[in-house]
Amino acid sequence: MITVGIVGGTGYTGVELLRLLAQHPEARVRAITSRKDAGTSVARMFPSLRGHYDLTFSDPQDADLRGCDAVFFATPHGVAMAQARELVAAGARIIDLAADFRLQDAAQFERWYKMPHACPELLAEAAYGIPEVNREAIRKARIVANPGCYPTAVQLGFLPLVEAGLIDTRYMIADCKSGVSGAGRKAELSLAFAEASDNFAAYAVGGHRHLPEIVQGLNRASRDAVRLTFTPHLTPIIRGILATLYAPLKNTAIDLQAVFEKRYAGEPFVDVMPAGSLPETRSVRASNVLRIAVHRPPDSDLALVIAVLDNLVKGAAGQAIQNMNLMFGLPETAGLMSPPVLP
Amino acid sequence: MITVGIVGGTGYTGVELLRLLAQHPEARVRAITSRKDAGTSVARMFPSLRGHYDLTFSDPQDADLRGCDAVFFATPHGVAMAQARELVAAGARIIDLAADFRLQDAAQFERWYKMPHACPELLAEAAYGIPEVNREAIRKARIVANPGCYPTAVQLGFLPLVEAGLIDTRYMIADCKSGVSGAGRKAELSLAFAEASDNFAAYAVGGHRHLPEIVQGLNRASRDAVRLTFTPHLTPIIRGILATLYAPLKNTAIDLQAVFEKRYAGEPFVDVMPAGSLPETRSVRASNVLRIAVHRPPDSDLALVIAVLDNLVKGAAGQAIQNMNLMFGLPETAGLMSPPVLP
Amino acid sequence: MITVGIVGGTGYTGVELLRLLAQHPEARVRAITSRKDAGTSVARMFPSLRGHYDLTFSDPQDADLRGCDAVFFATPHGVAMAQARELVAAGARIIDLAADFRLQDAAQFERWYKMPHACPELLAEAAYGIPEVNREAIRKARIVANPGCYPTAVQLGFLPLVEAGLIDTRYMIADCKSGVSGAGRKAELSLAFAEASDNFAAYAVGGHRHLPEIVQGLNRASRDAVRLTFTPHLTPIIRGILATLYAPLKNTAIDLQAVFEKRYAGEPFVDVMPAGSLPETRSVRASNVLRIAVHRPPDSDLALVIAVLDNLVKGAAGQAIQNMNLMFGLPETAGLMSPPVLP
Amino acid sequence: MITVGIVGGTGYTGVELLRLLAQHPEARVRAITSRKDAGTSVARMFPSLRGHYDLTFSDPQDADLRGCDAVFFATPHGVAMAQARELVAAGARIIDLAADFRLQDAAQFERWYKMPHACPELLAEAAYGIPEVNREAIRKARIVANPGCYPTAVQLGFLPLVEAGLIDTRYMIADCKSGVSGAGRKAELSLAFAEASDNFAAYAVGGHRHLPEIVQGLNRASRDAVRLTFTPHLTPIIRGILATLYAPLKNTAIDLQAVFEKRYAGEPFVDVMPAGSLPETRSVRASNVLRIAVHRPPDSDLALVIAVLDNLVKGAAGQAIQNMNLMFGLPETAGLMSPPVLP
Repeated sequence: MITVGIVGGTGYTGVELLRLLAQHPEARVRAITSRKDAGTSVARMFPSLRGHYDLTFSDPQDADLRGCDAVFFATPHGVAMAQARELVAAGARIIDLAADFRLQDAAQFERWYKMPHACPELLAEAAYGIPEVNREAIRKARIVANPGCYPTAVQLGFLPLVEAGLIDTRYMIADCKSGVSGAGRKAELSLAFAEASDNFAAYAVGGHRHLPEIVQGLNRASRDAVRLTFTPHLTPIIRGILATLYAPLKNTAIDLQAVFEKRYAGEPFVDVMPAGSLPETRSVRASNVLRIAVHRPPDSDLALVIAVLDNLVKGAAGQAIQNMNLMFGLPETAGLMSPPVLP
Repeated sequence: MITVGIVGGTGYTGVELLRLLAQHPEARVRAITSRKDAGTSVARMFPSLRGHYDLTFSDPQDADLRGCDAVFFATPHGVAMAQARELVAAGARIIDLAADFRLQDAAQFERWYKMPHACPELLAEAAYGIPEVNREAIRKARIVANPGCYPTAVQLGFLPLVEAGLIDTRYMIADCKSGVSGAGRKAELSLAFAEASDNFAAYAVGGHRHLPEIVQGLNRASRDAVRLTFTPHLTPIIRGILATLYAPLKNTAIDLQAVFEKRYAGEPFVDVMPAGSLPETRSVRASNVLRIAVHRPPDSDLALVIAVLDNLVKGAAGQAIQNMNLMFGLPETAGLMSPPVLP
Repeated sequence: MITVGIVGGTGYTGVELLRLLAQHPEARVRAITSRKDAGTSVARMFPSLRGHYDLTFSDPQDADLRGCDAVFFATPHGVAMAQARELVAAGARIIDLAADFRLQDAAQFERWYKMPHACPELLAEAAYGIPEVNREAIRKARIVANPGCYPTAVQLGFLPLVEAGLIDTRYMIADCKSGVSGAGRKAELSLAFAEASDNFAAYAVGGHRHLPEIVQGLNRASRDAVRLTFTPHLTPIIRGILATLYAPLKNTAIDLQAVFEKRYAGEPFVDVMPAGSLPETRSVRASNVLRIAVHRPPDSDLALVIAVLDNLVKGAAGQAIQNMNLMFGLPETAGLMSPPVLP
Repeated sequence: MITVGIVGGTGYTGVELLRLLAQHPEARVRAITSRKDAGTSVARMFPSLRGHYDLTFSDPQDADLRGCDAVFFATPHGVAMAQARELVAAGARIIDLAADFRLQDAAQFERWYKMPHACPELLAEAAYGIPEVNREAIRKARIVANPGCYPTAVQLGFLPLVEAGLIDTRYMIADCKSGVSGAGRKAELSLAFAEASDNFAAYAVGGHRHLPEIVQGLNRASRDAVRLTFTPHLTPIIRGILATLYAPLKNTAIDLQAVFEKRYAGEPFVDVMPAGSLPETRSVRASNVLRIAVHRPPDSDLALVIAVLDNLVKGAAGQAIQNMNLMFGLPETAGLMSPPVLP
């Protein structure tokens, strides 16, 4: 039985880790921290977990995280890197759900996150946590940088095309739509029900922090430099991301369906749907599956890929547990096989 | 391993049975029928279940339901009673999620459902399927009448007061609010998104079919005759029922919190929340738990009870599986312990 | 042309006043204040008003409110009473959309709003702003206390019964459901989309600030003392309140439909719907109409009233303009006749 | 005072015409037809219109449409063309909100709408009803083809770029998101609340009927042939379309903001927002305004245009009235100046 610590457990990724780990056969949460809510019981803050946890949020100072096998950081950017050295030295393995270890280049981290990197020497060894791309490195890693919610959808959606060199990488477009929980558990006017419901809008068109992370990942797989236009939108759903991806095909005679099916054959959490499918976000609600479909729009030379995932599961806590499973030699699917909740 | 048949599996209670049974350690779905969609695979109709089921909807004629240990009817009213005799004779046990066996009085059934009862002789032996009321009878039953979604919330909410004779049963009020999935998986204009969202309304004020069922259940527990005003409302959420219950107290000195805690002590699926709590529907989303709180409103002699459940789980498929577990001597909680999905 | 000042114009009642006054033939907004957003143009903060207003929010200090004919306070409690004396002395008429002048008893105000009353001597002359109850007093008033959103629905719903002495006033129940905009334009976690959508819950069961205001109004009309249980709920809609009202009838032979139709005959903004109707919130969306229906539930001696209004219009800004129209001798319906927006 | 007839008034475009015309100073609805609901009063079917209309739906046979000045067809495709000849001969002017007169080429109409065209000789004289493109022709037209909801957003969004020859027209992409009312007032499972809410998906990726209409309009303005990839998505809002448009720029040094501002200078219903703006659908809810913003995404040679409109107003009934105003020499904005409803 693996013992787990969660740092910063009061956000949506925190409560989702708790929900998923409650069903995990080989892991048990031993400590969960919150600076602000230390002393409050988990069941009081999240009545949905009544009966499932007997834990109380503890102050980060007091929590014995070093005694945990795995420590998840469900914190704002900057927290994990401040504690990584010490925890790693103590033998814990870290899975950071924030951005601290996502960008390999410390300078780029500093540019996008407006803070100096606290342990650039650990950046090199951190594994980027998309198992479908990086499985072997994750198995061995002491630190895993769990990707942002958009990057998983966009990278897994484009990768088969990029790896095979099938598209003109100068004109890639990711038109993405995210549910509101993607912005976190926050008191923010623009996320209020009376503002965000019955409304649809784009945001961060001038440059979203997930852009460099996506480009970094795609460039690793691409011969040619990737230029990506990434347009995030907010849609009034709680959970879910849908990415609509466009790129000019170099050769329009390719059987794209076969390319995708081959690339993801055997992957337990990537579902290449039958030709002609239109994946919808609810089909993955509360589950760790990414569903994907590839199309050729009429009268065009573009490839069109649609990918959906639950931003809190495959886009955050579920993928984090998938990574934990790999790091600890457990079955990759352990604790992650509950079907999606529909309707 | 219990073999399960589902008759009429294309509605919301059908797909919810499939979702929950996919996680059940001791039951396996062997047949699922649909007159209209025979030949379609389950995974095609419900992409959320891709990878979880290899089944195809079969024609009711062709399905070998008699070979199943348990047969769930997730059908419109009138179907289960037409097949009950034959299935019971063949040794199957029946759990009907429709109304055929809910009202003990065949005449009352005929009045509310506008059809003659096909097997009145089986009505007497059918057990009404609220385990918290009727556990022993359910264990032995060949036929269980799974309650409607409102009746579970209203009965479990009022029962501690009624059983203890604490309220004036002539002035009971159940002001109920239901999510839209309670109306079923239907193409109906009033349920359309553009009609039902951003809208709130009462319906069936003149008499809802769940009224006689609720009154029957409360009368069984009450010394005095129950007169109940039941006002259902439609609220724009997918899943969930919240019942706000009012009744005049005979004696205002009673410790209502203690009454409720004692009544439901040890119940795995009824959560009496701490005094002062306000249960919300999402705290039980996708789970089999009913949460309940009892209040004394200021400047009044009323008891105020608030009960929430997921209409598709504790209000339908989950309770049906809870009943199946009892009927087959399995742990009552088997397959039903996944935490609610929040947010 | 009446000149209008709005104090505190950045909340939902503020922007709704702006929306409605843009269509008013006899009133023109001259000044709008906001301490926090002074200097920002109205059109920048509310792009929906681009092209309709050339105004900029000004600091309350700098705004020439004394030169306005009518001053609306769309502020938190406590602001209007601090400025009332001076403005009234200068000849302006005040319509306060907050609570400062709603409760006639200063002690009760202080108990519920936790602040001393700044001008108790003005309380006596302030008119309570429900025109259907208080039309003549409003016409002459220098200060109108515009009611809260719940009080308009509950009072107008119960009044025909209370005035005629038809119900037992000891057991009155108002089970109310409000859209989220009723809580104001606020960054508050519990109002966030990912918290409040797909969710339903009661709140403030132990005592909501609108309770004393409702009871005060009903007591004015009642021979017997009113005891009211008021249970507010939050429902995931933007605008709208639905009040479901219950009270025991003294005499069940009365024609309730006739009582209601007579009481509200000729009222331009109260629509007594035909017998059997079930008013829905969207039927009044963005309009100043309150729709109402009265029912006799089966097997009960209760009267059941359902009333719906748009909390931002008849429950706030629309009623405030209706009051302004009366105060200035304009047609009562001026600027308020746009039909509801449906769907 | 213009007399108006509405054929097929029970859908969303029908009720929206009624809502808007109730506020029109120069037009009065004289007849409204519905084959299915003849004899039902408008106020009974749409309680939101109680007090605004005294009309009853009449059978199309019986309605004196020929005596109307303007006849709106808010019908399925195929109805207007069957009656056009006769009505035009009688002196009525026709505004068709369906597709019968949108495609100039009868063969293309037949290909996309699977029915022969009933009056190809009238196709040539019908004016395509986007006033910002076609104002003079509309003024003189006897028949106006009111555009579909997507085409108005996509054409007005792309036109400044296309007319000025600024983009490579071979790689145009319109990634569009529509509210559910765009699909009409229909009992259809996929539009049900429990299916469409908390969900996001693309549809009709293989070819939507609005595609040829958009391409026809853009080709009229373009020197080079237009190839457009059009991806519609369904988002859980009631009203609103947001179009995110992409096209490679031929020359990246152009001041796009100036191009757009100049193109739409003086247009009462096209709002080119300030540089950097992100228009949201609610900012035009219930109004006839299209808001538009143009961006240059970072590290790309693309133009990015975002356009929002209310699909029932500028995307249907509002634009139809704007066209009517032009056809009858009324002020173009008559009856259309109510501000958007927000929140």
